[in-house]
Amino acid sequence: MEVKNKYVSIKANINGAPEESDFEVKVENISLLVESESKEVVVKNLFVSIDPYQINRMKSQSSSQAAISFAAAITPGEAIDTYGVGRVLVSHRPDFKKDDLVAGLLTWGEYTIVKEGSLLNKLDQDQSFPLSYHVGVFGFSGLAAYGGFFEVCKPKPGEKVFVSAASGSIGHLVGQYAKLLGCYVVGSAGSQEKVKLLKETLGFEDAFNYKQETDLKSALKRCFPQGIDVYFDNVGGKMLEAAVANMNSFGRVAICGVISEYTNASTRAAPEMLDIVYKRITIQGFLAADLMKVYADFLSKTIEYLKAGKLKAIEDVSQGVESIPSAFIGLFNGDNIGKKIVKVADE
Amino acid sequence: MEVKNKYVSIKANINGAPEESDFEVKVENISLLVESESKEVVVKNLFVSIDPYQINRMKSQSSSQAAISFAAAITPGEAIDTYGVGRVLVSHRPDFKKDDLVAGLLTWGEYTIVKEGSLLNKLDQDQSFPLSYHVGVFGFSGLAAYGGFFEVCKPKPGEKVFVSAASGSIGHLVGQYAKLLGCYVVGSAGSQEKVKLLKETLGFEDAFNYKQETDLKSALKRCFPQGIDVYFDNVGGKMLEAAVANMNSFGRVAICGVISEYTNASTRAAPEMLDIVYKRITIQGFLAADLMKVYADFLSKTIEYLKAGKLKAIEDVSQGVESIPSAFIGLFNGDNIGKKIVKVADE
Repeated sequence: MEVKNKYVSIKANINGAPEESDFEVKVENISLLVESESKEVVVKNLFVSIDPYQINRMKSQSSSQAAISFAAAITPGEAIDTYGVGRVLVSHRPDFKKDDLVAGLLTWGEYTIVKEGSLLNKLDQDQSFPLSYHVGVFGFSGLAAYGGFFEVCKPKPGEKVFVSAASGSIGHLVGQYAKLLGCYVVGSAGSQEKVKLLKETLGFEDAFNYKQETDLKSALKRCFPQGIDVYFDNVGGKMLEAAVANMNSFGRVAICGVISEYTNASTRAAPEMLDIVYKRITIQGFLAADLMKVYADFLSKTIEYLKAGKLKAIEDVSQGVESIPSAFIGLFNGDNIGKKIVKVADE
Repeated sequence: MEVKNKYVSIKANINGAPEESDFEVKVENISLLVESESKEVVVKNLFVSIDPYQINRMKSQSSSQAAISFAAAITPGEAIDTYGVGRVLVSHRPDFKKDDLVAGLLTWGEYTIVKEGSLLNKLDQDQSFPLSYHVGVFGFSGLAAYGGFFEVCKPKPGEKVFVSAASGSIGHLVGQYAKLLGCYVVGSAGSQEKVKLLKETLGFEDAFNYKQETDLKSALKRCFPQGIDVYFDNVGGKMLEAAVANMNSFGRVAICGVISEYTNASTRAAPEMLDIVYKRITIQGFLAADLMKVYADFLSKTIEYLKAGKLKAIEDVSQGVESIPSAFIGLFNGDNIGKKIVKVADE
């Protein structure tokens, strides 16, 4: 028995900003017959994650591709793996049975044949949250926000926290975790609508539209009259330079991503090193995959906050495999508000 | 009773590379009469430290000047404070008496009137090491090397360690501490003579003359076929970029100084942020003054290593107050080998 699997691939490597013409939606036949001794699990994809870091996998070459398996190069024409949520269609494994809801490494497509050893976890069938939350706030975006903030930034109540791309998948959670800890929180974003969301819905002390600022250092000086203690960086480039210039002594910068540099290597940040030395600043890159040790703590706290209405998980959901390329391209134009997800199929 | 005090000052702020004409040797009369209730201590300077960071204090403005008291701006025409060793001439304090040998915050001059609260420590009169060691290997250069390496870099035996300005006041000690821990150590320096010293006298696994390399990334690739785990940075600029490009996952960079950027702000380092994220690199600025908690450990270990002949303290000593400007200027031309010290007077 076979089904047609529609999936997205790249036609060739992408070395600049991604465009619709770089992608194609392909169709293949996949077998739903799995041999009884096989460890493969066939999953029907329901929600898939759309993340900026995938652009680094699409490049002809990037030092990122050798660093860790999930960042490995994507081969043009082939399926693209991604974190997602789905339902088991076929499995002979004792730990997964038909109709189980699962989260793990799926694909930008309708079905995934999950190989043995690949990330796959069964979800609790009694879902009190939307299933899509397992892609975003309970997934690597949430873990990156929680672990990156608490473990890497080592914040204290009352500290001054700056978050860039603050309405994005990770940023909007970081700001809220910082507020819950009792920090003073300011975010940057790329539209007035996003600024309004940060200030009015998420309770940030302040926010600014970086596109309307002529001088980012002055903007941060205005928002942080007492300086910045913690900077959670999602963008890199000039914003990182401006943040370092406004940091207090013993300030910490967690580099979660540098989206402004992903599609334009000429925008590399050159922070003032004298500041880094004399203010004893720490800049630390991190990956959510390294933060699994805090996963249990992250999950229980996050569920508690969500149930109490103290944390809002904002999602930006597009429909259908065909929308994946534009959803992905939109990340680099700042189209999304909150976690970008594509719903591939109904539950 | 008065003495003539010859001292060095700057004529005006210095915003580029320092030159002889930027300095003047001035003479003032200072009184050796100290009122009996005064806490001032008059010290005859013997050895004074010559350090690159002083250039940042001489600038019209630098963010460094506000960061910490010892980095405060230097006023043209006035005496310039510096770490040094001297002998007490006059004191009514119970903790310092005439002829005591002391180390602390003195001046680039012949005498210092040390105010209450200023750094001053009595030295053991039974000196089994040269007195100048208290300016270098037992002073902030040694502490920066030891504390910066062990506390900031958190090295493990067998790790691959790169030190820039490796024959300098701090670098030559860092490399030796790393060797003593059992690390693989490579240094960069600016002459064949220095490279020879690092390899033949100090036992570095390898060293290179950065002035003879057309591509620093390739040079580091050649010296570190297995990548760099720890980079102790004294120079900043292109060397920092090249080191980050060659770092292993979870690599650590301690920024002790960025001499290549002190006199030329256009040479700011722009390390590849994708490397910092994906390789989870930590870059941390530090100051020796923050490492006092390890001072006792540093001193006992360092004395032990020196006595056992396992550590060499290399000094580059000039004579007389008049030599201070050229000694200082020489730091930025790479003239010194080891710790640059000026001997102001005989013991």
